[in-house]
Amino acid sequence: MIESKLKELGLQLPPPPPPGGIYHPVVIVDKMLYVSGQVPIQSDGSMIFGTVGKDMSVEDGQRAARQVGLTMLATIRDQLGSLDGIKRLVKTLGMVNCEPGFGSQPLVINGFSELMVELLGEQNGKGARSAVGMILPRGVAVEIEAIFEMF
Amino acid sequence: MIESKLKELGLQLPPPPPPGGIYHPVVIVDKMLYVSGQVPIQSDGSMIFGTVGKDMSVEDGQRAARQVGLTMLATIRDQLGSLDGIKRLVKTLGMVNCEPGFGSQPLVINGFSELMVELLGEQNGKGARSAVGMILPRGVAVEIEAIFEMF
Amino acid sequence: MIESKLKELGLQLPPPPPPGGIYHPVVIVDKMLYVSGQVPIQSDGSMIFGTVGKDMSVEDGQRAARQVGLTMLATIRDQLGSLDGIKRLVKTLGMVNCEPGFGSQPLVINGFSELMVELLGEQNGKGARSAVGMILPRGVAVEIEAIFEMF
Repeated sequence: MIESKLKELGLQLPPPPPPGGIYHPVVIVDKMLYVSGQVPIQSDGSMIFGTVGKDMSVEDGQRAARQVGLTMLATIRDQLGSLDGIKRLVKTLGMVNCEPGFGSQPLVINGFSELMVELLGEQNGKGARSAVGMILPRGVAVEIEAIFEMF
Repeated sequence: MIESKLKELGLQLPPPPPPGGIYHPVVIVDKMLYVSGQVPIQSDGSMIFGTVGKDMSVEDGQRAARQVGLTMLATIRDQLGSLDGIKRLVKTLGMVNCEPGFGSQPLVINGFSELMVELLGEQNGKGARSAVGMILPRGVAVEIEAIFEMF
Repeated sequence: MIESKLKELGLQLPPPPPPGGIYHPVVIVDKMLYVSGQVPIQSDGSMIFGTVGKDMSVEDGQRAARQVGLTMLATIRDQLGSLDGIKRLVKTLGMVNCEPGFGSQPLVINGFSELMVELLGEQNGKGARSAVGMILPRGVAVEIEAIFEMF
């Protein structure tokens, strides 16, 4: 169960971000949970901006990706009341703010994926994944959307 | 029902675009409708081109995104015969043609999302969403793919 | 059945690539198969790098996209033991490594789509599709993620 695992690891979730547009933060169809693209919100509510490989290192990008994971969990808990309905990660689209010539998107998105494995385990914490580069809103360093399977 | 809502709002759909590659415009699995990436087709069949934030304003980008929504509906009606099988929007990937430094992708994609809310209502017209920037085919201003749930 | 079709066409699959990050190559939920973003692996295990439209022609990009298709099949066979559980392609996100101004992403991704039609036929080999441009890991020319329906 993610809630007790979060406590065990001493992880704090940031404040859930208000929707930054006309969408639902999460949508559930049967047992599939679709989560809108999440950005890295810090504990004080501020976002992590940057172009990875240019004004931000891969390591800082990884930390941003991990923070996206914590933000995603904050969003899901805010919408559903608890994280314990989550069974496993199914699919992730990991998007890194970068410019042509940058090639370490998978390393960056590992920051998110490691958190999911810590919380859901090797089997259920890994999903299918793409990790690619694009131009992200407001210059946030990382944005990730995901599909989870619920119990 | 979308068909009567379209009539009520006096909205005209553009001609459905012929596939621009080797794909189905829509694929249905059980009650999930997967729609291929749609571009902004105008009533005369021409497309809206531009790089938002460079040679096109955010407002013009929003109009292009709304036009993508109308094109998507034209495509679905052309394939299924009617739009009234659509229950709700589940998920949108909103892609804006832009260059590094542009950050208003969510505002642009709101043009699509507002149309969906007008037609399907607050609850069913909003889906999970990501709004990001990339390099689009032929330089179209906006491309959007979506998943809908059918009745 | 894909396995006999591959033999009939004399197509060889490349070695399945080891995961390049923290993810499962494929995830199955009920009858839906989610495949992680695949890159073009050649028979000697090397990858095809390039920026399509800059240091690589559209035709070479198409060959890379076809090779992504063969790599995807290698990955699925490696994970499931056989390709014969695949019923049809549902959805593809085709990602082309390119720079602003490039506009032939659909033509490039057709290299993948043609292979799927050769193997699964006109109806089941075409899925819903988006074909767009972004910045890909390590500079690979094409990356494609897909959802298939299983029997």
